[in-house]
Amino acid sequence: MEIEKKSFEIIKGELGDEFVSSYPADALPLLCRVIHTTADFSYRDTLTITDGAVEKAREAIRRGLPIITDTTMAASGINKTAAGKFGIEVHCFIGDEDVKEAAKESGMTRSAVSAEKAARLYPECIYAVGNAPTALMRLYELIEEKKIRPALIIGVPVGFVNVVEAKELILRTDIPAIVARGRKGGSNIAAAICNALLYEAGGR
Amino acid sequence: MEIEKKSFEIIKGELGDEFVSSYPADALPLLCRVIHTTADFSYRDTLTITDGAVEKAREAIRRGLPIITDTTMAASGINKTAAGKFGIEVHCFIGDEDVKEAAKESGMTRSAVSAEKAARLYPECIYAVGNAPTALMRLYELIEEKKIRPALIIGVPVGFVNVVEAKELILRTDIPAIVARGRKGGSNIAAAICNALLYEAGGR
Repeated sequence: MEIEKKSFEIIKGELGDEFVSSYPADALPLLCRVIHTTADFSYRDTLTITDGAVEKAREAIRRGLPIITDTTMAASGINKTAAGKFGIEVHCFIGDEDVKEAAKESGMTRSAVSAEKAARLYPECIYAVGNAPTALMRLYELIEEKKIRPALIIGVPVGFVNVVEAKELILRTDIPAIVARGRKGGSNIAAAICNALLYEAGGR
Repeated sequence: MEIEKKSFEIIKGELGDEFVSSYPADALPLLCRVIHTTADFSYRDTLTITDGAVEKAREAIRRGLPIITDTTMAASGINKTAAGKFGIEVHCFIGDEDVKEAAKESGMTRSAVSAEKAARLYPECIYAVGNAPTALMRLYELIEEKKIRPALIIGVPVGFVNVVEAKELILRTDIPAIVARGRKGGSNIAAAICNALLYEAGGR
């Protein structure tokens, strides 16, 4: 905790006073935690938080809505003690037998099928995507079809194919969203954003 | 798999022919997978692989030596099917009750205590550190004390305090090492390097 405090001071110092004081106060802890997780200051320019998304996230957390992730790695990185304080369950369906089977039958990715499973079980949720652009693209379709309505989408898949496009698609919906534009992202970043939101909501 | 193939082609294209043909052939799949995991080309300049480390890693994998990680997230990101092909177990001790207690009593971090537990149980192992510089620093001491002798250390913690120094310390030992110099790294990168090594050894 001591080291984390010192790290955040270094991060804010390198971001600079002018930037820090002009950045939305409720979004700053998110940006700092993403940089803390990656040591990559380029998220300063790519982290995109839609209007009111942090406030909506706080409401969702206080209501104890479940967090769904696209990877076990993202699920594993979420602080369960902090989540537990709000009665929040963390789910990832990627390894479920029914998801594997449906993916095989349909030719869709397991990540896309997982989004469908979430739509059936938890149409209201926080959906965090750290890896699979296909998860974001299927989420977009399910939102359009009014089959899912996440309280928040964290859209930070990483990669070189369809990733940039999938993120822009999500930003076109009216769902509150936290997105790292461009190629960069990752399961660790999805988890870091969830943790920052949990901590800011009072989970630590 | 199709998308991964395309991604690797994009990565090699952006690295450039000259770079790709001059980079050590056995290390290239590691670098490409790290970039694939992060979309961050700066690893081109920071990924440091000591002489013969990839060959030593291959031997260790074929012998089925266990992989120890400092975080559950890194453990979670390692492809268990690929590891299983070599009979490789993946362990992370950070959440173990005895580690928690020993950390409380000693004032050491849980990551450092985990390194001690590994020294007792698996003095010969692949040790992958994606988060905690204290794990690397304790590993360094245990190596000096001849209490642990990993076949390979993957040293890619991320952060702003003691991280750069801890990585340099490991590079000073004679243990084969794969290190991302500087501040950057992460549990996702530790897992990506493990997976690249497993795949190159024939795990996929």
